[in-house]
Amino acid sequence: MQNKQAYVVAVVGATGAVGQQMISTLEKRNFPVKEIRFLSSKRSAGTVLSYNGESVTVQEATPDSFEGVDIALFSAGGSVTKELAHEAVKRGAIVVDNTSAFRMDPEVPLVVPEVNEKDLFEHKGIIANPNCSTIQMVVALEPIRQTIGLKKVIVSTYQAVSGAGVTAIEALKDQAQAFLNNEELAPSVLPVKSGEKHYQIAFNAIPQIDVFTENGYTYEEMKMINETKKIMHLPELEISATCVRLPVISGHSESVYIEVEKEMTVEELQNLLKDAPGIVLQDDPSQQLYPMPFYSIGSNDVFVGRIRKDLDNPLGFHLWVVSDNLLKGAAWNSVQIAERLIALNII
Amino acid sequence: MQNKQAYVVAVVGATGAVGQQMISTLEKRNFPVKEIRFLSSKRSAGTVLSYNGESVTVQEATPDSFEGVDIALFSAGGSVTKELAHEAVKRGAIVVDNTSAFRMDPEVPLVVPEVNEKDLFEHKGIIANPNCSTIQMVVALEPIRQTIGLKKVIVSTYQAVSGAGVTAIEALKDQAQAFLNNEELAPSVLPVKSGEKHYQIAFNAIPQIDVFTENGYTYEEMKMINETKKIMHLPELEISATCVRLPVISGHSESVYIEVEKEMTVEELQNLLKDAPGIVLQDDPSQQLYPMPFYSIGSNDVFVGRIRKDLDNPLGFHLWVVSDNLLKGAAWNSVQIAERLIALNII
Repeated sequence: MQNKQAYVVAVVGATGAVGQQMISTLEKRNFPVKEIRFLSSKRSAGTVLSYNGESVTVQEATPDSFEGVDIALFSAGGSVTKELAHEAVKRGAIVVDNTSAFRMDPEVPLVVPEVNEKDLFEHKGIIANPNCSTIQMVVALEPIRQTIGLKKVIVSTYQAVSGAGVTAIEALKDQAQAFLNNEELAPSVLPVKSGEKHYQIAFNAIPQIDVFTENGYTYEEMKMINETKKIMHLPELEISATCVRLPVISGHSESVYIEVEKEMTVEELQNLLKDAPGIVLQDDPSQQLYPMPFYSIGSNDVFVGRIRKDLDNPLGFHLWVVSDNLLKGAAWNSVQIAERLIALNII
Repeated sequence: MQNKQAYVVAVVGATGAVGQQMISTLEKRNFPVKEIRFLSSKRSAGTVLSYNGESVTVQEATPDSFEGVDIALFSAGGSVTKELAHEAVKRGAIVVDNTSAFRMDPEVPLVVPEVNEKDLFEHKGIIANPNCSTIQMVVALEPIRQTIGLKKVIVSTYQAVSGAGVTAIEALKDQAQAFLNNEELAPSVLPVKSGEKHYQIAFNAIPQIDVFTENGYTYEEMKMINETKKIMHLPELEISATCVRLPVISGHSESVYIEVEKEMTVEELQNLLKDAPGIVLQDDPSQQLYPMPFYSIGSNDVFVGRIRKDLDNPLGFHLWVVSDNLLKGAAWNSVQIAERLIALNII
């Protein structure tokens, strides 16, 4: 960061799974904070959290909470964003929003710094943080797009429960313990808390994340499809997704098939990704080295491995992409956007 | 079965995860058994199991164990098959082998009855049972191949630990309990017991099943590729696979992308699969109806759902295919082959 200024930062949804990670990420990054405000729903207000060793009481988020705020990191659900983001902007804040509320709004930049930080210059107060499963994929695909072009993507995801919040993490643990005890425990959280039916996630896989759209794809799948096109500025990209929830606490994995425009060897592709920003290459079958979600927890990086040429299409490759969905998929990407706003003198 | 004859049946590997399911499948199907022999390694010999309520002592499998045997169901690992299958054939048995030992042998039929039971007529004593993840996929794909042709397959699997045997099931449960207790437990079974490195499977996903081949694909992935071509008699099929182990006890899931030769609507494809042998269609997003591994346990069927048109390629479809890997993926397919041998008067 080139200037030594410090900022008034608000975290909206401070008690949630992502909010907690936003707070610890701001601490770890020594983010230039002049004053921190933790905001939440009325229900969670009053909770006392710590920031750099000091106690901070969570306050109910209202329009006035944003008076004097420079940067507001939102992760409290789409309805809170829709209610309060413009109020924050009106009071002079730049909003970095981790919900889907404004992601596809043509007036709102949707940003993954490794891919399209230039879009930050177009902001009108709100910047959207993409969906977790989208972020890690575009970090892995952007160096490929730049170098040999990207024509087609088919992705199948293996997503952790923490993407559905703290209650989903507890549900997984409680169900697993009940199963190991030979006890019955009626599921009540996944796939969608407000949905009609709930299924066990412990020792299961649920091929539904978010609700269904009319074309038979889920919203999660359509988010991956539409957000990838917007972030990468590839409206013509052929892309399709199947999103699946797993009994994994944190760390999303993705089996990604791509078709590129020019031939490249696996070794060249490995070298390309090894040197790309935000990526750690873990790809050595002889050492059983490949990314895994359990071992990705706590890292800001996107891990890529299992890179193989398709056996039929000389322009086809298969990749396995893993990242901590609460960090690069959410909290870290939001704080990283805030850091880039400072570094690029946008704020 | 048209004749009322009964047979001397041997189960080789009777104490294993698949062997146990073979025994209960023979019981459930009222298989025409004149005499049953449970065989195993020296280590497990002496174990007393039950068959239709009667105690049967497991005996060490030796060449002489197969004297008088009509049908020998092998599932005790490739080395046992290589050592004893020809000995069994020499003594007059037909061998149905659930290992990979002879699957790609051009002299050995590789059979999924719903797909290629005609190949049973070509047998020379040994019939191979395909890999679990292959079987459920070809059951779902065969009606499509027959009706509108099949050009390309890209599959990502979500495989249960029971495919790696009883020790892997125990490892998953023990690791899950240790994690819930905040205890450390060094992994020692997966991904490959004899491998150099072992990783936790509880709350994780491991993108390695079986060891790696020289092209960067695992043997499991190459099995799916090569066996599918052989079973479906489609040597020119474009097919690629990524195989991943999950913290699921039983039930393999597959995210399958296909390209077909002729256009068809989703509804037509659903109707086609609904009436196809061995398949149960579970595909109604409005009712949150789709297949899941936890709920597939104990069924012989292959469950298909989440059928969607690709959003770019009018000849592309996405499917989600689930089945109990110990049943249709192993024990049931083997017993079903034995039933078809009788029904077709081959034995």
